[in-house]
This record gives sequence, structure tokens and C-alpha cells, in this order.
Amino acid sequence: MKGLFITLEGGDGAGKSTQIRNIERFFTEKGLVVVHTREPGGTQISEKLRDILLDSHNTEMTAVTEMMIYAASRAQHVRELIIPALERGEVVICDRFVDSSVAYQAYGRGLGDMVAEVNRHATGGLRPDITFWLDIDPAAGRARAAKAGELDRLELEKLDFHYRVYEGYKKIAEAEPDRVKRINAADTVEEICSSIYACLEELCAEKGI
Amino acid sequence: MKGLFITLEGGDGAGKSTQIRNIERFFTEKGLVVVHTREPGGTQISEKLRDILLDSHNTEMTAVTEMMIYAASRAQHVRELIIPALERGEVVICDRFVDSSVAYQAYGRGLGDMVAEVNRHATGGLRPDITFWLDIDPAAGRARAAKAGELDRLELEKLDFHYRVYEGYKKIAEAEPDRVKRINAADTVEEICSSIYACLEELCAEKGI
Repeated sequence: MKGLFITLEGGDGAGKSTQIRNIERFFTEKGLVVVHTREPGGTQISEKLRDILLDSHNTEMTAVTEMMIYAASRAQHVRELIIPALERGEVVICDRFVDSSVAYQAYGRGLGDMVAEVNRHATGGLRPDITFWLDIDPAAGRARAAKAGELDRLELEKLDFHYRVYEGYKKIAEAEPDRVKRINAADTVEEICSSIYACLEELCAEKGI
Repeated sequence: MKGLFITLEGGDGAGKSTQIRNIERFFTEKGLVVVHTREPGGTQISEKLRDILLDSHNTEMTAVTEMMIYAASRAQHVRELIIPALERGEVVICDRFVDSSVAYQAYGRGLGDMVAEVNRHATGGLRPDITFWLDIDPAAGRARAAKAGELDRLELEKLDFHYRVYEGYKKIAEAEPDRVKRINAADTVEEICSSIYACLEELCAEKGI
């Protein structure tokens, strides 16, 4: 595929939204078409599934159910939106992708290997060209997110859950250093942006963009 | 687990609903508690997922998305309703289960082995004690179903799809003859009922019920 697939990962309050806008600017200034999307969501069917996932009334939802709904939403998102955009040569910037499922469900909820296995089918093997992990201490991240407004069902989870998620992200980043770029989210917005831009310049050079 | 888990399978118009009532009567007359449920559905979360699956507006839904939503719905149904009832020693009669996913998605939609793999995680390995496959020729079944009322998204599929589903059921029945009992749905309601009752008497004798 001709396009570029870029994902952002990290706990609540890591500052993903700000950096997504910066990445978008980076590529629009190069004259490329940018599609900005998010998970769970991104298509009509995926957004309906998102509503079920984030509804704080669905307290009886089991961990396996949750994981499967994320995978269903992703299967639709990949085939209806992401792959067609990449085939048109566009840049797709996605707020969360498979790494979120592995961090939150395999590590946070303890579901283990089934998460990667189910998601291999959900994505059909599609992987991001580059992933930015905005690394922030879970306690600091939650304090920032709480300030910003109401917390949804996942955000209401206890802090030890968020530390398990954090360990998950660390393991993913260690296992795939070429794809996953760890960014210190405690840096200033400007410092983070220039770290990301340096990685993007390198990626564009590699890809001849 | 102490209870009995019974599933019914077969295309539209095979007469599953009538036989579910007969099976229910069989066990209530033995003084057992019977839970009658269906897939997709059976719990609040599963019914929300059912609405997305059967909504005839969701025409852009991909085959993998559909399969994953069924699996998500099943994961919740198994853990919230079926396993707790079996642990209380009840009889659970379920209208469709994993065999439907294998027949419709693996065979009908051509998704192959991923369907069984994902569903192994969805069920956590739970299998029915006995499954009745109400075997009816797809063309005859559709004619009966069309008479009964409006057809939903899946029922609107073309006839060749339903023949692939039928082949799937045949292969499942051949692979697991001890569990899957093929019942000729072209027989009279009374003949079908007595075939089913004969199988159930045998099952009860085996289980000491």
C-alpha cells in the first residue's frame, strides 16, 4: 500500500490529541492528504460498538466480551476506512490501535495471548508504519485526565489496572523498537512535537516521501 | 457442571421454535428448571449487539466484523447466562450456538478456520451436551420463512449462500456424530418431536437424570 499508517498510544492524559494535530500539520504541509481517525470508532458500525463499550451502565460486561467488541470494531475500521485510504496513498493517523488492546486487555485484564490472536484476524495482518507511545506515569496521567472532564467506564478502573496497562506498553515498545517510538509525555508540548517530527522526517526519508 | 446444555441448529423455516417448546416440556415434566435462550442475544449486552447484526441498514458490515460481533455476543451470553444456569443444575436450551457461526461465517462467508479459533476464546471451550440439527433443504426452508413474515439482513442473502451454509452443517454433523443429531425437518412436527425425545431419553439415561 502506498500510504502511511501512524498510530498514537498511551494512557489517559498523555496528550495524544495535541500531538495528533501536530502530526496532521506535518503531513499537510508536505501536501499529503491526511485522514485522522480513532479507536474504538471511525466508521458508523464501529461507533455503534464504541457506544456499547463506553456505556458506564454495561458494568456486567466480561473481559472477553469487551476484547471481542474492540476486535469487531477494529475489523470494520480497518476494512472500511484505513485500508482504502492507504490504497489511495493517504496518511492515516489513528488514535489507538491493536497495541491498546494488547496493553489494556492482555495485560490490564490478564487475557494473555488470545488478544493478539483474535486481533490478527481483526486486522488481517495490517500493522502501523510507526507508533508513538506517549509514555506517562499512570497516576500523573489520570490526574490530568480527571481535570479535563468526566471519566468513562474504562477510565474509572482502579490505578493498579493502569499500572498493568503501563507494563504492557513497556513490553510492546521493548519487543518492537523499530515500529514503536517511546516519547516522554512529561516533556513540554514543544519538546514532544520536535521528538515526533524527528521520527517522521526519518520515516519519510526511508519511504522516499 | 451439573446441568444440561442443548442447542438447536438449522436454516430458516426448519421449525426450531416449535421443537424448542417440545424440549422444554420434556424437561419440565421431569421436574427440571429449564432456561430457554437464543443467539445472537440472551443478555442485555448481547441483545444490543444483536440489534447491530440484524439491522438491515448496516449493509457495509464486513464478514470479519460480523463474525467478531457474534463472538462478542456469545462471550457475554456464555459467561453471564449459560454457565451460571448450568452450575445451578438447570437445563439450558439455546436456539443457535457456535455451529451457526461455523456454518454461516466459516462456510457461508468463506472465512474458514478463524471462526472456530475466535469462538474457542468466546466460549472458553464450553460445548453443548447435545445439538439437534433440523435438516431442511435451503430452498424449502426459505419458502417457509418467507411465508412467516419479513426477512432480516441475513435471511435476505442469496440462495447459493444458504447452500454453502447447508454444506457447513453437513460437515459439522459428520465430524461430531455423537454430539450432533441430524433430524429430518421435512418430517411432521410429531415425527420430529418423537425423534428428539428418543435422543433426549438416551442422553438422560447416560447422565443419570
